[in-house]
Amino acid sequence: MKGYGMVIVNEAGWLDKPEPTPGPLDAIIRPTLVAPCSSDTHTMHGGAGPKDDLILGHEAIGIIERVGKLVKNFKKGDKVVVPCVTPDWLSTGVQNQRTFSHDSFLMGSFKFLLSKDGTFAELFHVNQADANLVKMPETGVSDEAALMTTDMMSTGFHAAELAEVQYGDAVLVIGIGPVGLMAVAAAQLKGAGRIIAVGTRPICIEVARSYGATDFVNYKEGDVAEQVLQMTDGRGVDRTIIAGGAGDSLHTAIVATRPAGVIASVNFYDINDKLAIPSLAWGLGMSHKDIRGGFCPGGAERIRRMLELIANDRIDPSKLVTHRFYGFDQIPEAFKLMDKKAPDLIKPVVYLDRDDPAAAS
Amino acid sequence: MKGYGMVIVNEAGWLDKPEPTPGPLDAIIRPTLVAPCSSDTHTMHGGAGPKDDLILGHEAIGIIERVGKLVKNFKKGDKVVVPCVTPDWLSTGVQNQRTFSHDSFLMGSFKFLLSKDGTFAELFHVNQADANLVKMPETGVSDEAALMTTDMMSTGFHAAELAEVQYGDAVLVIGIGPVGLMAVAAAQLKGAGRIIAVGTRPICIEVARSYGATDFVNYKEGDVAEQVLQMTDGRGVDRTIIAGGAGDSLHTAIVATRPAGVIASVNFYDINDKLAIPSLAWGLGMSHKDIRGGFCPGGAERIRRMLELIANDRIDPSKLVTHRFYGFDQIPEAFKLMDKKAPDLIKPVVYLDRDDPAAAS
Amino acid sequence: MKGYGMVIVNEAGWLDKPEPTPGPLDAIIRPTLVAPCSSDTHTMHGGAGPKDDLILGHEAIGIIERVGKLVKNFKKGDKVVVPCVTPDWLSTGVQNQRTFSHDSFLMGSFKFLLSKDGTFAELFHVNQADANLVKMPETGVSDEAALMTTDMMSTGFHAAELAEVQYGDAVLVIGIGPVGLMAVAAAQLKGAGRIIAVGTRPICIEVARSYGATDFVNYKEGDVAEQVLQMTDGRGVDRTIIAGGAGDSLHTAIVATRPAGVIASVNFYDINDKLAIPSLAWGLGMSHKDIRGGFCPGGAERIRRMLELIANDRIDPSKLVTHRFYGFDQIPEAFKLMDKKAPDLIKPVVYLDRDDPAAAS
Amino acid sequence: MKGYGMVIVNEAGWLDKPEPTPGPLDAIIRPTLVAPCSSDTHTMHGGAGPKDDLILGHEAIGIIERVGKLVKNFKKGDKVVVPCVTPDWLSTGVQNQRTFSHDSFLMGSFKFLLSKDGTFAELFHVNQADANLVKMPETGVSDEAALMTTDMMSTGFHAAELAEVQYGDAVLVIGIGPVGLMAVAAAQLKGAGRIIAVGTRPICIEVARSYGATDFVNYKEGDVAEQVLQMTDGRGVDRTIIAGGAGDSLHTAIVATRPAGVIASVNFYDINDKLAIPSLAWGLGMSHKDIRGGFCPGGAERIRRMLELIANDRIDPSKLVTHRFYGFDQIPEAFKLMDKKAPDLIKPVVYLDRDDPAAAS
Repeated sequence: MKGYGMVIVNEAGWLDKPEPTPGPLDAIIRPTLVAPCSSDTHTMHGGAGPKDDLILGHEAIGIIERVGKLVKNFKKGDKVVVPCVTPDWLSTGVQNQRTFSHDSFLMGSFKFLLSKDGTFAELFHVNQADANLVKMPETGVSDEAALMTTDMMSTGFHAAELAEVQYGDAVLVIGIGPVGLMAVAAAQLKGAGRIIAVGTRPICIEVARSYGATDFVNYKEGDVAEQVLQMTDGRGVDRTIIAGGAGDSLHTAIVATRPAGVIASVNFYDINDKLAIPSLAWGLGMSHKDIRGGFCPGGAERIRRMLELIANDRIDPSKLVTHRFYGFDQIPEAFKLMDKKAPDLIKPVVYLDRDDPAAAS
Repeated sequence: MKGYGMVIVNEAGWLDKPEPTPGPLDAIIRPTLVAPCSSDTHTMHGGAGPKDDLILGHEAIGIIERVGKLVKNFKKGDKVVVPCVTPDWLSTGVQNQRTFSHDSFLMGSFKFLLSKDGTFAELFHVNQADANLVKMPETGVSDEAALMTTDMMSTGFHAAELAEVQYGDAVLVIGIGPVGLMAVAAAQLKGAGRIIAVGTRPICIEVARSYGATDFVNYKEGDVAEQVLQMTDGRGVDRTIIAGGAGDSLHTAIVATRPAGVIASVNFYDINDKLAIPSLAWGLGMSHKDIRGGFCPGGAERIRRMLELIANDRIDPSKLVTHRFYGFDQIPEAFKLMDKKAPDLIKPVVYLDRDDPAAAS
Repeated sequence: MKGYGMVIVNEAGWLDKPEPTPGPLDAIIRPTLVAPCSSDTHTMHGGAGPKDDLILGHEAIGIIERVGKLVKNFKKGDKVVVPCVTPDWLSTGVQNQRTFSHDSFLMGSFKFLLSKDGTFAELFHVNQADANLVKMPETGVSDEAALMTTDMMSTGFHAAELAEVQYGDAVLVIGIGPVGLMAVAAAQLKGAGRIIAVGTRPICIEVARSYGATDFVNYKEGDVAEQVLQMTDGRGVDRTIIAGGAGDSLHTAIVATRPAGVIASVNFYDINDKLAIPSLAWGLGMSHKDIRGGFCPGGAERIRRMLELIANDRIDPSKLVTHRFYGFDQIPEAFKLMDKKAPDLIKPVVYLDRDDPAAAS
Repeated sequence: MKGYGMVIVNEAGWLDKPEPTPGPLDAIIRPTLVAPCSSDTHTMHGGAGPKDDLILGHEAIGIIERVGKLVKNFKKGDKVVVPCVTPDWLSTGVQNQRTFSHDSFLMGSFKFLLSKDGTFAELFHVNQADANLVKMPETGVSDEAALMTTDMMSTGFHAAELAEVQYGDAVLVIGIGPVGLMAVAAAQLKGAGRIIAVGTRPICIEVARSYGATDFVNYKEGDVAEQVLQMTDGRGVDRTIIAGGAGDSLHTAIVATRPAGVIASVNFYDINDKLAIPSLAWGLGMSHKDIRGGFCPGGAERIRRMLELIANDRIDPSKLVTHRFYGFDQIPEAFKLMDKKAPDLIKPVVYLDRDDPAAAS
């Protein structure tokens, strides 16, 4: 079976691997639409340590090819949306967490890339299908919108959950790549008043505005925290969401957030990032500025809820899709685009089951 | 000083009373825009017990006429929005509650009607001005929108807070008068997916749809709970908000809500209402269907947050206003309209400081 | 295989049934210590509807006899503590609830009695062993204490969780049978100040006092709510836990609890109980007195946490055990004792694997 | 009027200052029992910046000498317990926070030392007496126990609140000075299972054990986090409370806490402390290990709740008192003892209104 991934650190390429087989509770999926993510490129560059011969990809929708004997609610041919986080629900770890993210160990519920091959393949494996797969809604949700729920939307919305946005809150969103953009939409859908976004790329600013951002800060025009404090008459924002940057984002967040506010991070830091809490701005420990951070919740219900939001016209995450590719052999092109982070890129997708409609005409 | 209110139970009329004077922390307001509420008419009919010589009204914006000596942040001439709930912040009761609603006793933070004259007067009194008044924003909020925050919006939004609406939840809203309509908007702004509204009046259905209702149930077409269960494939809704009806609404809510869901009531029941929990639908006590109920939170920050939502274009509560009156002497007309509950009525307002612009032209 | 249960409604007796077999994820247990519960006798009397040929019992510790092929963490011969609530972790229902109590339907996670035979048998079945069984600690926990965690302690402690007891709260506990007694201990271990218990039996009062009750109310000496209001200078308690009584307990709780307090019920009501909310005491819906109710949370981690409390000497639930029986054939005696509710009874247990030590001497 | 405080940075001494006068809402107190705190000595050494001519002290009980005209619930001669945190309840800031700690600015609710003279004086000032003072209970609470509530107990208990300790949690408490010891007691009273305390002084270990600590870690015997991970079979603790140390405590806490656990700090850091989050142990931002920190909640109700715990025999915080002084002129001795931190010291107190009973005999 063919798959695309990392041959070794810093080298992406085609791999040939045996077809996956399902355990009794599992399913094998033939992907029809996939998207590369910066976590994929980050992994390829060694960000998750040395790995080789690993198929990348963790965002996909597709068609079930096989199911294990004990699977009850799905069968071959079902079209499904696949969460990027698929906990082992029989581990006891999930019983102590609201997000089910860390089944047997830190991040354990994230299986793709971390403990098995990913979705850039002819076929891929999903554990515990009944608890981790969601049927594609028959109407009201496009393939692209559904694909965006699997990581970008679920992660961005988790940021607003971690931040516990309240009605009328001023919310700062640092970073408006695809996850930050979803966090903007999520903050609006939790009742934020003002939403201040930090970013400079025109395409991102435009989409952020459409998702509810009311103000923008350009880090090239001065210290971000200072600008935010000025915009809020020295008061600071009620909540800050970190969806980009390195350790400096944390510093900015703590300075820009009011006492008893919340800093919520969904940023994937580098192992070498310096995450320093500025002692004075954190009130020498007395400020009640909570610092929270984690990746997106796992399981089928999580994604079903995201799909409900789309089906009921609360949000359209397919606005994130700026580039479309057609055909399995185009995965490398999409991957390279994500790796380069072109200025007009938010998110590329690859249709694996259809030809370019433009080419057809 | 002239005021409009209840002469005795079931008799509304003009009253002549002495001008109010401020204590050291208080303010006296000259109202410029007021609205009658069904709580006013309910009180007039004896719903809060026998009272006489009481000026009614608890929704107002206006101009400060006098302030007490210890007031720091307001002065004569300031235009202010007046919360209908104005806690005594020096009572210890407020320290044990998130909503500050019950300062020294049940509902104690609700001062108008309950412990002093209301806002349908040339002048009215507000306790602890610094903590209970909000300056009218200079831009971005119309007078009518600001007026709607003082009770309707704050109460409706509290319903969604009590319900703890989560992303993608199916939410049932029973009753789509002005508070119910605000609850619909509030549910959407907390991330509801499907919002099922119970109501029949065309004007209300139209506004509900514009605020985010996706489905409607007509109680004339069968048992409401049964209809809701059918619409949700037997699953029930995640949250039910009660904003109308009598004890039957509670029964409907418990049947229609899934196990581990929440029923949140902001309905003002009659003392004779039978509020019966159906034992079986409540799982013989085992269902984890929470039942919550309370009136709107108090204080300046609450209303400031509502105004932030309006100023940032998250919602326009002035859609509730269906009828406008001009002149102090028109208060009785507006009041009678509210008392009759005309089919095309959602909310009437009375401008006290300007003439009918239509008459002028 | 022999088991004890209900032949038909109102008739308990020995049953002969086939030995249970494990599914791939399951385990078969040979019980060594069991206890009858009032839910068992209530079921026998038809409280859960007409059933026949059903083995009763849902509290047990025992030795694993067989495990399914996919079980990883347990093997034949392991001594285990068995939660009375064993969710199907592969159902999506559990993903939307903090207590995991209602897997595919209301109370669905409660398998014994409701959807299969219980623990009063030579062997019994447990679904999803890895997620639902807990190894008996090697030291620090007696068999009786461990047995009490499976339902009584977990349920009583859930009451204090539902009530969200805060430091210094005055807590009222209505009913001091075994669950109410555990709720008293749980309230103390959540930081309650005063704990007022409603009950009259001397044995229960003595144990309640040892678990932290500070005051007692006798319902024979006047209206309970009135007595509580007097004891609290009219203020009411912060939290009320209902662990006994019928609909009158709910009435008492609402009257006795302060505005913005919480009423938490773990009581198993009868289908015919009238659960009426008194409109005035509930502030005509305005009081913020939350009403919550549900049965004990499910799964292995829940019970592990209870065992941790025992092993660290925070509580000794074996004080509940007032009567001990020895031998499988003594199950009927223990069951009848529970059915009669003798005045000196809190909880009987039956040792299935040992003889009466008194007889031996 | 005589008071003891800082003449200039690093110089403590007697000061002569005018008697304070109450505003209309305030009270003047004659202290009868006071205690120095490490925050006082830290301030004297310049830890809160350059200050001079400042009376120190923020822990006191005493007798009311005068009240302002608008004070309703207190009068001259009342014996009162004085919270160290006394918010301005008329500021709008308190309406957005559960702890009321930051009224108009960061730490604004902490008035002593920060914005006015402290309690080591013949008389001292308390703002908003009705909301910030608590009458000394007539029975059940000793003067020393009451004094300990004003800061030590309230702060230590806040640590366990921030940590959201759940039943059966393993809790690590870093630092067992007086606040850490109270945090140990607080963790037990929130239902902790195992409580692992980090500390070495015999007197502190003894008191910690009596408050519920089950295990001890000596930082001299190796890396604390490593020791904790070993003690928990690599799992880590569920919650970590930081009540001592510098930036290294935060590092230890993050390593020692499990994914989805909570780190709660009530430590007063130095402005130069390096508070670095270790990226890898924090899961590169993905771990859901919350970091929270703040000082003790303000107001009368807070302290009333602490007193309720004492009066109901849940805890005796007077165990903290290791040294007693008698007479106003002994304040400097007590202060110096606290500054030196003698090995056998937990907390000294000074009785201002009585002679040494030992001297008398």
